[in-house]
Amino acid sequence: MNYRMIRYITGQLLLVEGALMLLPLAVSLIYGETETVVAFVLPILILAVLGTGMVIFKPKNQTIRAKDGFVVVGLSWIALSLFGCIPYIVSGLIPNFVDAFFETVSGFTTTGSSVLFAENFARLWSPESAAVGMRGVFFWRSFTNWIGGMGVLVFVLVVMPQQDMKSSRLVHVMRAEMPGPKVDKIVATVKKTSAIMYGIYTFMTAILVILLLFGGMDLYESLCSAFATAGTGGFSIWSDSMISYGGGANVDFCTWVIAIFMFLFGVNFNVYFLVLTGKLATALFSEELIWYTGIVIGSTAIVTYNIYSIYGDFAESLKQAFFQVSTVITTTGFATADFNIWPSSSKALLLLLMFVGACAGSTGGGMKVSRLVIAFKSAVAEIKHMGRPRQVSRIRFEGKPVEKDTINGVFAFIISYIFIFFGSFLIISVVDGKTIETTFSSVAACINNIGPGLGDAGPMANYAFYSPISKLILAFDMLLGRLEIFPIIMLFSPSVWTEK
Amino acid sequence: MNYRMIRYITGQLLLVEGALMLLPLAVSLIYGETETVVAFVLPILILAVLGTGMVIFKPKNQTIRAKDGFVVVGLSWIALSLFGCIPYIVSGLIPNFVDAFFETVSGFTTTGSSVLFAENFARLWSPESAAVGMRGVFFWRSFTNWIGGMGVLVFVLVVMPQQDMKSSRLVHVMRAEMPGPKVDKIVATVKKTSAIMYGIYTFMTAILVILLLFGGMDLYESLCSAFATAGTGGFSIWSDSMISYGGGANVDFCTWVIAIFMFLFGVNFNVYFLVLTGKLATALFSEELIWYTGIVIGSTAIVTYNIYSIYGDFAESLKQAFFQVSTVITTTGFATADFNIWPSSSKALLLLLMFVGACAGSTGGGMKVSRLVIAFKSAVAEIKHMGRPRQVSRIRFEGKPVEKDTINGVFAFIISYIFIFFGSFLIISVVDGKTIETTFSSVAACINNIGPGLGDAGPMANYAFYSPISKLILAFDMLLGRLEIFPIIMLFSPSVWTEK
Repeated sequence: MNYRMIRYITGQLLLVEGALMLLPLAVSLIYGETETVVAFVLPILILAVLGTGMVIFKPKNQTIRAKDGFVVVGLSWIALSLFGCIPYIVSGLIPNFVDAFFETVSGFTTTGSSVLFAENFARLWSPESAAVGMRGVFFWRSFTNWIGGMGVLVFVLVVMPQQDMKSSRLVHVMRAEMPGPKVDKIVATVKKTSAIMYGIYTFMTAILVILLLFGGMDLYESLCSAFATAGTGGFSIWSDSMISYGGGANVDFCTWVIAIFMFLFGVNFNVYFLVLTGKLATALFSEELIWYTGIVIGSTAIVTYNIYSIYGDFAESLKQAFFQVSTVITTTGFATADFNIWPSSSKALLLLLMFVGACAGSTGGGMKVSRLVIAFKSAVAEIKHMGRPRQVSRIRFEGKPVEKDTINGVFAFIISYIFIFFGSFLIISVVDGKTIETTFSSVAACINNIGPGLGDAGPMANYAFYSPISKLILAFDMLLGRLEIFPIIMLFSPSVWTEK
Repeated sequence: MNYRMIRYITGQLLLVEGALMLLPLAVSLIYGETETVVAFVLPILILAVLGTGMVIFKPKNQTIRAKDGFVVVGLSWIALSLFGCIPYIVSGLIPNFVDAFFETVSGFTTTGSSVLFAENFARLWSPESAAVGMRGVFFWRSFTNWIGGMGVLVFVLVVMPQQDMKSSRLVHVMRAEMPGPKVDKIVATVKKTSAIMYGIYTFMTAILVILLLFGGMDLYESLCSAFATAGTGGFSIWSDSMISYGGGANVDFCTWVIAIFMFLFGVNFNVYFLVLTGKLATALFSEELIWYTGIVIGSTAIVTYNIYSIYGDFAESLKQAFFQVSTVITTTGFATADFNIWPSSSKALLLLLMFVGACAGSTGGGMKVSRLVIAFKSAVAEIKHMGRPRQVSRIRFEGKPVEKDTINGVFAFIISYIFIFFGSFLIISVVDGKTIETTFSSVAACINNIGPGLGDAGPMANYAFYSPISKLILAFDMLLGRLEIFPIIMLFSPSVWTEK
């Protein structure tokens, strides 16, 4: 293992995190929140010193192998979360370490599960004085959704000097962080690929901000809401999520805009790159896109039909249905309605969509549409092979044959996912003894990076009631879900650490 | 496809079914149930005529390929259930066809889900006159559990004349019907292997009958209870399952005996064969047996601790816990307590055990311990391979390397299982709109061949409330579960039918 290179990249990451914290610090200063300024200044200083110390000696051997890629991603995300929770603790918004860590992991992994109560949100909107306001801290909270959405190491790859990285194989870092069964460069270099991804991401976020401003939000509200939407994170700055938008915006308009953009951020970004490079037909006939769109349309139709009797109005039912389907399949987790009270057939459908997740190479979580399609095709091929043992058929996805390693990776992912899912479910059940619906949906909501579950952890509730052990397990599940299991599991494998 | 051979074997099967029905007919006659005698005489005549017509011409080409094996097993089980439900309809116990079919499939697949209410059981225990009694019909109901436990085609292989079958490869029939990721002959011929399996099965059932007689049951009660236990089916002749044993038996003694025997019937029968042939050490160090025993002991300990506060007595808690763990992991589905009222941590654990299931080559259902162990090991090996792409490690199970085809089969099984599971869950949710807990646990209880679920389908309830569509889907899931998916799926594959 190339420890020096891992140290070097992690150092770069800490510097980037410190630099990103300048933004919420600026917000704090702008709003005159003098008492919470220290909540950012302190971690920025720590990150600057630590990060500089770690990058000062450049490693000679810059080769990153597959394993190094997984390990650096796993370690970086844990480090990111440990330092990222300092603003919550120091500002006093979430004084407890486990709670603050949970909230930070939830933010970076774009889960959106929260430990905040309505009274915590009151500190944002009606502080006793501007000096103790929480605008900066809540900005940071929403911003973590955005940072985690496209991936922080992908961002590091954008800003790292190219000439330092000539001989290294940083594609392994990108592969380990970006979601999907098979990740590859779309242009010649990793740096350019990352830059294009972040470019598209930033551009789409900017359009969303403009639309939300147009919908009546102020700049602060637009930015925070856009961050949480773009990262498909789901942290809201309002205690009722997206039901009233704080009262200042056009609810119908903003709901439609956010619903559509959640859907768009759940699309594989390669599709947008294809569109940009003029390959419109290839983009639109992407197999994953067709499946994803089909599932969203079908599910929206069923839910609309199903909840029509509650709302008694087609437009309202359609809006609620589309928003909820979009927020669940992209694993954003915003709420416009308490779907705990919806008919159980709609709840069952939404529960399934939680597992499906969005497309590979998007900011969404879950298992990913492409992974499920590949798994399904492989199973069908294998069953055919059983009936005719002499015949071997290779499966195709997106018009290309799928490599054996990709199929094995999908298999390993699904099996590990199942074991981790049920292991977490069992431990949390035994530790906290909540109902099966609550525990099951909480684990599902965390491992799929959605946010709210059902029952006690429903969209109008929070995760504060769980014991610290359960919170740490759920945080661990969020990281496993966001990084698609392997980087985190590798950290626990003795063989990874023993070998040179 | 060898249609003639499929016809021939199915014919044999119908004859066997007719012959097996002589037993409940005898019970009817012994108890003087004159009005229900016709319920057996009619199907016996139909089966005799139809079966004879199908076996009268022996096919020249007796070669059974893998695909033929799957198809004949799939078709046979459907035929078996269609004719097997006649006694319920004609006797008037279950006049509705869909309900009777559901009950029959539930019996043969050793699921044990029932549509019977307490008043139906009253017709067994307090009929208006002996002439309309239901002893024969309920005997048939319990007997279906026993027949399905070891497999009816395996039984056909026992009774079929060896000289007729010389050139055919009947191992494919045995493989398609017997549960587990990898089934092979334990002795030189398929016929002998099947005979040994049935010999052990019958012998163990006989011991169980004797013990239950000793525990105060009469012969009728012992036989019926032993059939349902041995097949890990779970049909009880009492409306409260195994809570009071009809009042005539020693409850504590019978509960322990049944709990232990359920566990024993969940063990791979190869282990018993090894014991019989003196290979005790090999038998006891079977990897699957160790895992299975470990899971049962661990789960019993957790549940005992968890329910101690309810029963306030260690011996009682241990008995209830062991019985429930044993009945769930072996997928029998007897109830001695309404575990709907147990703490949710115990319920969560039991729900997980439902999916684990018993050992391969046993009469139990579920995914099977060996399949999960192989899946787990493959996933770990694959993750190691990801970290070091040049290194390929083969996994071992029961001391031997696992073949690639076995691993692929496990993968295809798990993926198909997941899609079928959630597909059924979704359709039943939309059709019937019951709570998520009820629908989810009903599908789990049927696909894993357990019987009772949770909520409305709990151990003290029944499945009568489901709509006919849902009942048919659940019956389909039971068949998929018992036959481990592939034989039933093959029936729906056009390519199976089009090729010569």
